[in-house]
Amino acid sequence: MTARDGWWFFTCGNQILLIPQGHCIPHGQWNDLALNRDISEPCERFAVYQSEPCYRVELTECFDLGFGQWFELRETMSQLNAALFDLAGKAIQFALFLDTHRFCGRCSKPFERVHWELALQCEACGFRAYPRVSPSIIVLVRKGKQILLANHRRHQQDPPMFTTLAGFIEAGETAEQAVVREVYEESGIKVNNLNYFDSQPWAFPHSLMLGYFADYESGHIRLQKRELSAAHWFDVDNLPLLPPHGTIARRLIECAVDQIKQESD
Amino acid sequence: MTARDGWWFFTCGNQILLIPQGHCIPHGQWNDLALNRDISEPCERFAVYQSEPCYRVELTECFDLGFGQWFELRETMSQLNAALFDLAGKAIQFALFLDTHRFCGRCSKPFERVHWELALQCEACGFRAYPRVSPSIIVLVRKGKQILLANHRRHQQDPPMFTTLAGFIEAGETAEQAVVREVYEESGIKVNNLNYFDSQPWAFPHSLMLGYFADYESGHIRLQKRELSAAHWFDVDNLPLLPPHGTIARRLIECAVDQIKQESD
Ligand SMILES: NC(=O)c1ccc[n+]([C@@H]2O[C@H](COP(=O)([O-])OP(=O)(O)OC[C@H]3O[C@@H](n4cnc5c(N)ncnc54)[C@H](O)[C@@H]3O)[C@@H](O)[C@H]2O)c1
Ligand SMILES: NC(=O)c1ccc[n+]([C@@H]2O[C@H](COP(=O)([O-])OP(=O)(O)OC[C@H]3O[C@@H](n4cnc5c(N)ncnc54)[C@H](O)[C@@H]3O)[C@@H](O)[C@H]2O)c1
Repeated sequence: MTARDGWWFFTCGNQILLIPQGHCIPHGQWNDLALNRDISEPCERFAVYQSEPCYRVELTECFDLGFGQWFELRETMSQLNAALFDLAGKAIQFALFLDTHRFCGRCSKPFERVHWELALQCEACGFRAYPRVSPSIIVLVRKGKQILLANHRRHQQDPPMFTTLAGFIEAGETAEQAVVREVYEESGIKVNNLNYFDSQPWAFPHSLMLGYFADYESGHIRLQKRELSAAHWFDVDNLPLLPPHGTIARRLIECAVDQIKQESD
Repeated sequence: MTARDGWWFFTCGNQILLIPQGHCIPHGQWNDLALNRDISEPCERFAVYQSEPCYRVELTECFDLGFGQWFELRETMSQLNAALFDLAGKAIQFALFLDTHRFCGRCSKPFERVHWELALQCEACGFRAYPRVSPSIIVLVRKGKQILLANHRRHQQDPPMFTTLAGFIEAGETAEQAVVREVYEESGIKVNNLNYFDSQPWAFPHSLMLGYFADYESGHIRLQKRELSAAHWFDVDNLPLLPPHGTIARRLIECAVDQIKQESD
């Protein structure tokens, strides 16, 4: 394949191959990897990391390649550094994009790859599609010394995990309108005084999280039961199980907790 | 159809029907509109404005309905208030979504409408699609008392319009990484000290603009010639033709100009 050192992202659905000892993505020249089987799948350069090319190789099964171990992408957040975790998410999102865009949505003819950018083009009707990135808001709501956290129906382990509210931005609205709408829909609370915090790419399945702080304005908690099973105002010295380190949810919570504690000193 | 007062968004491709006198979207009950022809297209409730329902009616041609006038959506920015302009964009984006998602991209079978949310579902393979919203960054770069503006190949009228740099956020990157990458790719300039400003939905074709301020760090202007035809550092009291009022580009520029003038006082 290529004789340059590079980073090798072997993926299969939501799984990615890591070298567990080094907690890392396989690195080096293709021949150094010494795969114990022939790989017929094409390898594609899709990014650059530390001045070296990143290649993705999408496999149809989680084959034993003679080295490395397969992990669910989500589980690798505690193993990889943030940059490699985001690149792994990018590799998996590209594969998902190609898988879900085999045919033109407008006329159903097969899509063709564009060669100079990552896009698919329909030669029959002219429609072009790019990998989807779905902007979502995520928001830490503060009421005096308390913060609003909710338990999502997705996270019903014991003890239950509580996290900040989140949701997709719709066509035709600003990110800030989405914050106000989502908090109200999910919890019945009105918020104001929005403050942008930071963003995070989130490959589950293809979101871009935009993080905000907001202040409680009015209302009592009234749960949206389709998505959430509980929501409460928490004192910062009596917090429930929180989302893992590395998530923007966790960073929003820790930032608010620090600020509230500082103000109390 | 319905006997409630509502807002009627008649669309056809990128065109929307306005009442030019009131600079407005047709309003009232369906029967009050007194259309001079039968409309067989379904009308669909898609939003709420001032506590009243918004309906979209997608026509195959820009028919004369006996009232109102057809406009390109872009031209209506100076006529409609911001909320109605964004709702018109939403109506047009929904129509585009339905038009470009007739068939499942994964298996090419026809998509079916989901009834409780705006989504399309493939009964054959289970794939579900939502209207696309493509997050993009737009950034005002400042160097001392000067600001960086570029002329896009799209805007080659005489005199040419100059605007802030913009570009799509890619899978696997943060919005802030996209700002740094896009400014560098389009102009050769490195920036730091990013500050989030505000966001704007932008239906051309389905973007969400995230606006930032950034400071010049290093580099000389080196143009990306595929998209841009010129880029310069402008003094704030000697500005070129700027983008129209109502765009987030214009708001970024005016905000920076105000600040630079205040600092000079
Ligand atoms: N990184 C983090 O810290 C963090 C924390 C919480 C949530 N998230 C992510 O935020 C996103 C939104 O969170 P949520 O709890 O509302 O998600 P969710 O998965 O519960 O989605 C809510 C509902 O929105 C609809 N939906 C799904 N995709 C959509 C799209 N592209 N556009 C419009 N509607 C869509 C569906 O009806 C879905 O059931 C998810 O991607 C989730 O993984 C990230
Ligand atoms: N509201 C405002 O003030 C304002 C001002 C400037 C630009 N914009 C918008 O910002 C967006 C980006 O601006 P630009 O000048 O880079 O746009 P552009 O239309 O010149 O696009 C640049 C290139 O990006 C690629 N591309 C197109 N759609 C993509 C997608 N969804 N994902 C990834 N790549 C894609 C294509 O190769 C395209 O030629 C456009 O939608 C534009 O309309 C808004």
